[in-house]
Amino acid sequence: MTREKVKQFVEKSSAQNFIITLIIINSITIGMETSSAIINSFGRTLLLIDKIILAIFVIEILLKLYAYGFGFFKSGWNVFDFAIVGIALLPASGVLAVLRSLRIFRSLRLIKNLPRLRFIVESLLLSLPSIGWIFVLLTLVFYVYSVIGTKLFGSSYPELFGTIWASMFSLFQIMTLEGWADIARTLMERSPFSNIYFISFILIASYTTLNIFIAIVVNTMSEIQQKISAQETGKIEDIIQDEKEELRNDIRNLKEQIIKMEEKLSKKISAL
Amino acid sequence: MTREKVKQFVEKSSAQNFIITLIIINSITIGMETSSAIINSFGRTLLLIDKIILAIFVIEILLKLYAYGFGFFKSGWNVFDFAIVGIALLPASGVLAVLRSLRIFRSLRLIKNLPRLRFIVESLLLSLPSIGWIFVLLTLVFYVYSVIGTKLFGSSYPELFGTIWASMFSLFQIMTLEGWADIARTLMERSPFSNIYFISFILIASYTTLNIFIAIVVNTMSEIQQKISAQETGKIEDIIQDEKEELRNDIRNLKEQIIKMEEKLSKKISAL
Amino acid sequence: MTREKVKQFVEKSSAQNFIITLIIINSITIGMETSSAIINSFGRTLLLIDKIILAIFVIEILLKLYAYGFGFFKSGWNVFDFAIVGIALLPASGVLAVLRSLRIFRSLRLIKNLPRLRFIVESLLLSLPSIGWIFVLLTLVFYVYSVIGTKLFGSSYPELFGTIWASMFSLFQIMTLEGWADIARTLMERSPFSNIYFISFILIASYTTLNIFIAIVVNTMSEIQQKISAQETGKIEDIIQDEKEELRNDIRNLKEQIIKMEEKLSKKISAL
Amino acid sequence: MTREKVKQFVEKSSAQNFIITLIIINSITIGMETSSAIINSFGRTLLLIDKIILAIFVIEILLKLYAYGFGFFKSGWNVFDFAIVGIALLPASGVLAVLRSLRIFRSLRLIKNLPRLRFIVESLLLSLPSIGWIFVLLTLVFYVYSVIGTKLFGSSYPELFGTIWASMFSLFQIMTLEGWADIARTLMERSPFSNIYFISFILIASYTTLNIFIAIVVNTMSEIQQKISAQETGKIEDIIQDEKEELRNDIRNLKEQIIKMEEKLSKKISAL
Repeated sequence: MTREKVKQFVEKSSAQNFIITLIIINSITIGMETSSAIINSFGRTLLLIDKIILAIFVIEILLKLYAYGFGFFKSGWNVFDFAIVGIALLPASGVLAVLRSLRIFRSLRLIKNLPRLRFIVESLLLSLPSIGWIFVLLTLVFYVYSVIGTKLFGSSYPELFGTIWASMFSLFQIMTLEGWADIARTLMERSPFSNIYFISFILIASYTTLNIFIAIVVNTMSEIQQKISAQETGKIEDIIQDEKEELRNDIRNLKEQIIKMEEKLSKKISAL
Repeated sequence: MTREKVKQFVEKSSAQNFIITLIIINSITIGMETSSAIINSFGRTLLLIDKIILAIFVIEILLKLYAYGFGFFKSGWNVFDFAIVGIALLPASGVLAVLRSLRIFRSLRLIKNLPRLRFIVESLLLSLPSIGWIFVLLTLVFYVYSVIGTKLFGSSYPELFGTIWASMFSLFQIMTLEGWADIARTLMERSPFSNIYFISFILIASYTTLNIFIAIVVNTMSEIQQKISAQETGKIEDIIQDEKEELRNDIRNLKEQIIKMEEKLSKKISAL
Repeated sequence: MTREKVKQFVEKSSAQNFIITLIIINSITIGMETSSAIINSFGRTLLLIDKIILAIFVIEILLKLYAYGFGFFKSGWNVFDFAIVGIALLPASGVLAVLRSLRIFRSLRLIKNLPRLRFIVESLLLSLPSIGWIFVLLTLVFYVYSVIGTKLFGSSYPELFGTIWASMFSLFQIMTLEGWADIARTLMERSPFSNIYFISFILIASYTTLNIFIAIVVNTMSEIQQKISAQETGKIEDIIQDEKEELRNDIRNLKEQIIKMEEKLSKKISAL
Repeated sequence: MTREKVKQFVEKSSAQNFIITLIIINSITIGMETSSAIINSFGRTLLLIDKIILAIFVIEILLKLYAYGFGFFKSGWNVFDFAIVGIALLPASGVLAVLRSLRIFRSLRLIKNLPRLRFIVESLLLSLPSIGWIFVLLTLVFYVYSVIGTKLFGSSYPELFGTIWASMFSLFQIMTLEGWADIARTLMERSPFSNIYFISFILIASYTTLNIFIAIVVNTMSEIQQKISAQETGKIEDIIQDEKEELRNDIRNLKEQIIKMEEKLSKKISAL
């Protein structure tokens, strides 16, 4: 088979629907594997289905690699597919439960294959850069507060602020406002001014994350507005264009009128 | 009575206000039934009122069915009414407390009968499709995380992650940020890297739900803007139209002026 | 003193600043009364200051009543002032600690007297009607869920769902997402399907309150946009007006040119 | 060296990158000091690095002071730098752990030196005034509720409402909705009507903070809209300008036409 034909084959909508169906079936079978009752009764069948589907996925990727060559890796989604199937191949030989459980990531291939889902995920990813620097700022705030937290409270409360990582986890917890008051009241028993630490952190972190949110809303809205504004300008331009045409037409008629008059008067005068 | 007359009767505003009053009275009596003190004293009366009102509701539906025929079921709100009264009929014979308690759903008929409430609920329902696919995405994320959670933590913490359903409930709890840190700290004792699981889930789920929200705001806003923009374009079009009229008038005057001049000069020349 | 003079006196900015100062001093003294140490040392002084300031407030209201007559009660803020000072008079003779503690409401008179604060509070109050019906809807949802909750869980968990009021409080708590999972997990032990109750309530309540929020944002934004749009239309109208003037001027010049030409040619012809 | 040369030196991009690198290295070394294992092995080295970097920072500030004179203090960011390095000098001689831990604030100098971060922080600070008065209102609400809380619940629950400060902390906790229901249920055991206190506070505080948020969104959006609107008006003005030019040109041509005609006819008449 030529490359072109393979390309046509993998791009056929029936082929794509077949892959979507397989992804969904595979997602369900991997989900069923979490029930020990089902594994006891149908464990072998599930494993067989899993192997068959994985084989088809590998063939799909190989066909696409053959059809597109290295151009295959130009699309981020293809790299994503390749990695997902790659991970799926690993646990077959591996021993780690963690890696085996990552097989469910194959479900995420649905995102690539359903255009609407892909559009949403792409929008979500595209709005990330606009919040990138706010995220850097938030990281800086986290780092500063976790160093201070570790130094001040680390020795007394090693579970919460023992290391920088423990402090960062505690600060993340405090940023989500989950149980922050318990932590704060515990620490305030020994160091009464620690409430300054907590309240200032909550205010700064909330205000900054609030602005992450605002940045996304405002970005999205201003893009839409620019489009609407451009549309409106276009319509008004058309209206003005029409007006101009009519007025110029009138003036042209006037000109012809004058020219005719000139001719008439000229003739009359000549006829004298 | 002819169908037309029945139609006029059920559509009378006095008939509708009567139904609204009955719904409110019925809501209150069903609410009063929750107090055993009231049931002991007025239990029979409440039951009687309930039966009378239900009878009237059934008659109302029957009249409407007669008046509109199968066209009755074309409106989603009528189907809703039909189902609510249907549920209300069931518990009268049934034994399940759950079904009996669903009688209070009759209160929701108020939504259909108060235009402002109906408008709001219809808006809420209309904004659902715009977030439908984000919801699909969120479901996918939930499914993937619950399969991973069940596989990794299921055997150690069966209450939280024992089955896919238990995991989904736990993940829903974590998404609401309620008590997530307690769960995370419990799991981190045995598997220290589980914080990656929790933090990544919180970030992804928050970011996605945030975008559900943004989608609604942006949709609503861009609709309103398009309306305002259309209004503005309309007004500017009127202004330009007026301008054009005046200018064309001026030009027309000019033309007449020229024609008059021509006539005058012609006459003068002819008079020579 | 004539009414007019009293009016001028109470409206003087120095008189108003004096009242603002008194409100702030009074707020501080009432706040100081919460400390038993301060009461032991300065209790009498604080009481004296309180009585003097209250007397001045009463005189202020009386003067205003004299100056404006019943027109005084036309402004909501004046009624507010009157009620606040009225409450402040009650506890002086009363015995209830609750009423005494309400004296601090006098601080809220600051809102009326600081224009910027007043503007914000008025904006907040003005945006209430736009969310009024969503609030009615939310109340309906609360009522339906609290009746169901009381019927289903009331006998097993009287503390949480014993009466309609207890259920409503529990539902308000669940709506704020505070500790909802603890309540849900407790109830799910006996009735496993109660998670449908909780999750559906959280989704509906969140979605509805979300729309309260969106309603305010969208209302505020569309008002501002309408203003901006009107400004823009105004500017464009001016530009078009200017254009029209220039063009009509040109056409008028042309007309004069033609008239002059006619005269010239007429003269020439007549001179023949 | 002249002032001008020093100025050129400190403003060189290589000098600035050198400072940025030092800030990052210093942030890491101060972070490493939180680990006692690292301090035991490399404590001296870290201290040495810290002293060297601090010395360079001091020299940098001194050079800038020399280069700009008192103009140095005109920029808020320079004052910030000066204060940070000043704090950093204190703990070297001081004994307090708190002050030593504040050395990490030097990391915040990154904000000044990375333009994108600086822009975001400046935006965040600029949006503060627009919410200033809402903040005053919120403070007033906090004060009123904390005075009432202290008076009503202070004697029974000294930990939560013992003093105004304790009440304010509890109210801040309640505003974040963290554990508010536990507090409310505890207090409702003794004073059943305290739920009015809690629910009213939550509603008022949420509604007010919601409006802080809305104020920022609306402010940002209306600025952007005004810009977009100005752009649009500009474009439409250009279009109208072009139209006017063309029409005036046409009219000018007409005028010339008439003048030519006049000349022609004049000649013809004169030639008679």
